[in-house]
Amino acid sequence: MSKPAIPKGTRDFLPHEVRKRQYIFDTIRQVFELWGYQPIETPAVELLSTLMGKYGEEGDKLLFRILNNGDFLAKADREALQLMDSYRLALSIAKRGLRYDLTVPFARFVVMHQHQISLPFKRYQIQPVWRADRPQKGRYQEFYQCDADVAGADSLMYEAELLQIYDEVFRRLGLKVRIKLNNRKILAGMAEVVGIADHFTAMTTAIDKLDKIGWEGVRAELAQRGIGAEAQTELQKLLHTAQLDALAPLLENSELGRAGIEELRTVWAYLDGITLHQHLSFDPTLARGLSYYTGCIFEVVVDTDAHPSIRMGSIGGGGRYADLTGIFGMKGVSGVGISFGAERIYDVLEALDLFPQGLTQALQVLFVAFDRDTHRFAFRQMSALRQAGIAADLYPEPTKMKKQMKYANALGVPWVILVGEDELKSGKLTLKNMQSGEQSAHSLDEIIAILRASK
Amino acid sequence: MSKPAIPKGTRDFLPHEVRKRQYIFDTIRQVFELWGYQPIETPAVELLSTLMGKYGEEGDKLLFRILNNGDFLAKADREALQLMDSYRLALSIAKRGLRYDLTVPFARFVVMHQHQISLPFKRYQIQPVWRADRPQKGRYQEFYQCDADVAGADSLMYEAELLQIYDEVFRRLGLKVRIKLNNRKILAGMAEVVGIADHFTAMTTAIDKLDKIGWEGVRAELAQRGIGAEAQTELQKLLHTAQLDALAPLLENSELGRAGIEELRTVWAYLDGITLHQHLSFDPTLARGLSYYTGCIFEVVVDTDAHPSIRMGSIGGGGRYADLTGIFGMKGVSGVGISFGAERIYDVLEALDLFPQGLTQALQVLFVAFDRDTHRFAFRQMSALRQAGIAADLYPEPTKMKKQMKYANALGVPWVILVGEDELKSGKLTLKNMQSGEQSAHSLDEIIAILRASK
Repeated sequence: MSKPAIPKGTRDFLPHEVRKRQYIFDTIRQVFELWGYQPIETPAVELLSTLMGKYGEEGDKLLFRILNNGDFLAKADREALQLMDSYRLALSIAKRGLRYDLTVPFARFVVMHQHQISLPFKRYQIQPVWRADRPQKGRYQEFYQCDADVAGADSLMYEAELLQIYDEVFRRLGLKVRIKLNNRKILAGMAEVVGIADHFTAMTTAIDKLDKIGWEGVRAELAQRGIGAEAQTELQKLLHTAQLDALAPLLENSELGRAGIEELRTVWAYLDGITLHQHLSFDPTLARGLSYYTGCIFEVVVDTDAHPSIRMGSIGGGGRYADLTGIFGMKGVSGVGISFGAERIYDVLEALDLFPQGLTQALQVLFVAFDRDTHRFAFRQMSALRQAGIAADLYPEPTKMKKQMKYANALGVPWVILVGEDELKSGKLTLKNMQSGEQSAHSLDEIIAILRASK
Repeated sequence: MSKPAIPKGTRDFLPHEVRKRQYIFDTIRQVFELWGYQPIETPAVELLSTLMGKYGEEGDKLLFRILNNGDFLAKADREALQLMDSYRLALSIAKRGLRYDLTVPFARFVVMHQHQISLPFKRYQIQPVWRADRPQKGRYQEFYQCDADVAGADSLMYEAELLQIYDEVFRRLGLKVRIKLNNRKILAGMAEVVGIADHFTAMTTAIDKLDKIGWEGVRAELAQRGIGAEAQTELQKLLHTAQLDALAPLLENSELGRAGIEELRTVWAYLDGITLHQHLSFDPTLARGLSYYTGCIFEVVVDTDAHPSIRMGSIGGGGRYADLTGIFGMKGVSGVGISFGAERIYDVLEALDLFPQGLTQALQVLFVAFDRDTHRFAFRQMSALRQAGIAADLYPEPTKMKKQMKYANALGVPWVILVGEDELKSGKLTLKNMQSGEQSAHSLDEIIAILRASK
């Protein structure tokens, strides 16, 4: 028998890990709910016709495909078989795949359930997705996404409230972050003004790498795409203008640029008079790479002034996409949304020791008994504690005290109750504080009061 | 463009459905936690070497297999290709599959993490599983399992507490159920006493169908397997003896039978003096079919005396398996566990209207504004409500009142706050109770107090 294993890029989660992950998801969920977002769930397994062509050529290759059940070769593409063409053959032997993100399933959901929902539809979704990326540190093939999106409204109020959600979630998590805001129309306006509008994708792709390759690298990449030195310099000047009021006159000649400036001003106006706890700023160099965004774009990074030990890419991102559901034949539905990088947030909270104390200790008390009769007595006492809302357990056998205390220590349980013959007779139980080592005798009701107070 | 769809046997969940499912999962989770069970999670994607051969030949066929990424044909079994043997080819082009249940992954988890956990290890797991069953009413290809299991202890205390967990969960859900208890050793003892020990599997398989095919059907099936009429009659007599004390002397000649009786008596002894809210009884006809159980077995059905309108199979089941981890090379680890049929429980609660009132209404108040200035003012007021822990929203545009109220009604929101010019000037907002239609003017603090009290 070979040693059991799990697929590369997947993980098991031990209890303390599940609880920490749950804490992050719960914090995000509670804020989503306060902001009026409603939960939906979609199946892990989608039709490949839903998924393919939505994530670019590279994305298609990273889809996990599920082999059709039964005699799948009966309907296989014979020519692809003869040519030994794996990619083509897959199209005929796998009609389903695993969810790759939560946005495409959401768009499909809105179209399929358009008569059961009311627009604007504010939904959140916290579910795993699967990508056949090469596994590496911090990158998994199965991981969770936490998304909130609004479908069916153009109002910039939603941009403002999604920024507030970032602000509030990270405040609750005790993490200082920088929230960056830009607008793809401003980038488009820059491209127009500089005269490289037909190189817009190359431009945003290059700018997106600024953090990694620096200005020299960006300029080199722009040059490679045939963008001249003068245009590069002009663009760099615009990208350095991080004040909306200073940038506005420079983009005056571009209709798109003016629209982008105006949109950001409206978002700021909504946030006027509202206290934010995090640093929020306009960042003209924020590009969000090859994304499908058309309006405002957001990104969240850890504030390295507050947390200098942290080296981490973005822990959240999102934006406005003018056409959410067009890919599924429903026109005129705009979308705007944000996503939390839960896996990275976990690593940051762990590194900074920001998980709440006691989060991973659910069991409050372990009973220890010494013979058959005290064991059964202890079982009844334990049941009363559980009914009183106190998580309790009993070592399964009345064995040696040492062995039972070792188990108590392994569980990290803060209290132990010893049940011997004396306790059975007197009805008073011996309660031991595992941290101080102190012991005292109490009735069950007293113990319930003590344990409730110590929660 | 074709209409979007999802694979057969899968489902989307609308917000009210997610909330109802979450209520069931939360109820089960809270009880698991009080009883000292800890959460683990395992990946949806397992190696097929972990899954295959664990669920019988039929189970292997129902596994969802994931096509290897990249040029999978390069390593394909050439002979299987030439023979067009789908089943054999699959072995060479798919090394991963979707989780089929939570027990096999748990066994794998215990073996892989044996040095990170302490035995007895009490875990619960609430995650989806996938089976390529033919979809039909109430049967899905992707569905949730909710399991609690103990690994590494023989103590019958766990059988007793798992029965308590059933009792408590269904009490909390407001559902009257019957919990049935038997022991595979008693069934084995019966087979020995009747002289059909070598037909044990056939016997349990037949008994398992009793509810569907009746005694005549069971006898016919036993006859088919070569079991004579006299043995059938004797067995039927034993199966009708639903009192442990009456059955004990009849099984006296079977060591297994005596052990089974003794085990059940120990379970009863643990439960002595403990109040149960549900009907718990020994049922010698409970067999749990082709399962791998070796000791106590459990099953839960809706109490049709209390809920005569419900026709539903079992909504929970479980038992003891002497060897949990042997399949992965770790000997001597006993397991016992229970499972909740969450999908069926959902249908029953829905049919009986047992979901709590207000469960599906999270949003408490919708702001309605009438021009740009009141809209931005309303946005700030709404933010204050959210910060005060009240789920609030604002219609995205200051449009016609009728349209905004229609949205409020569609959301089912209990309160609306109207913000017009008067409200902007006076600072008093108009609060409307959507059920009574009553309106009154209040400060924001007053509104916070009213909404908190009305939760």
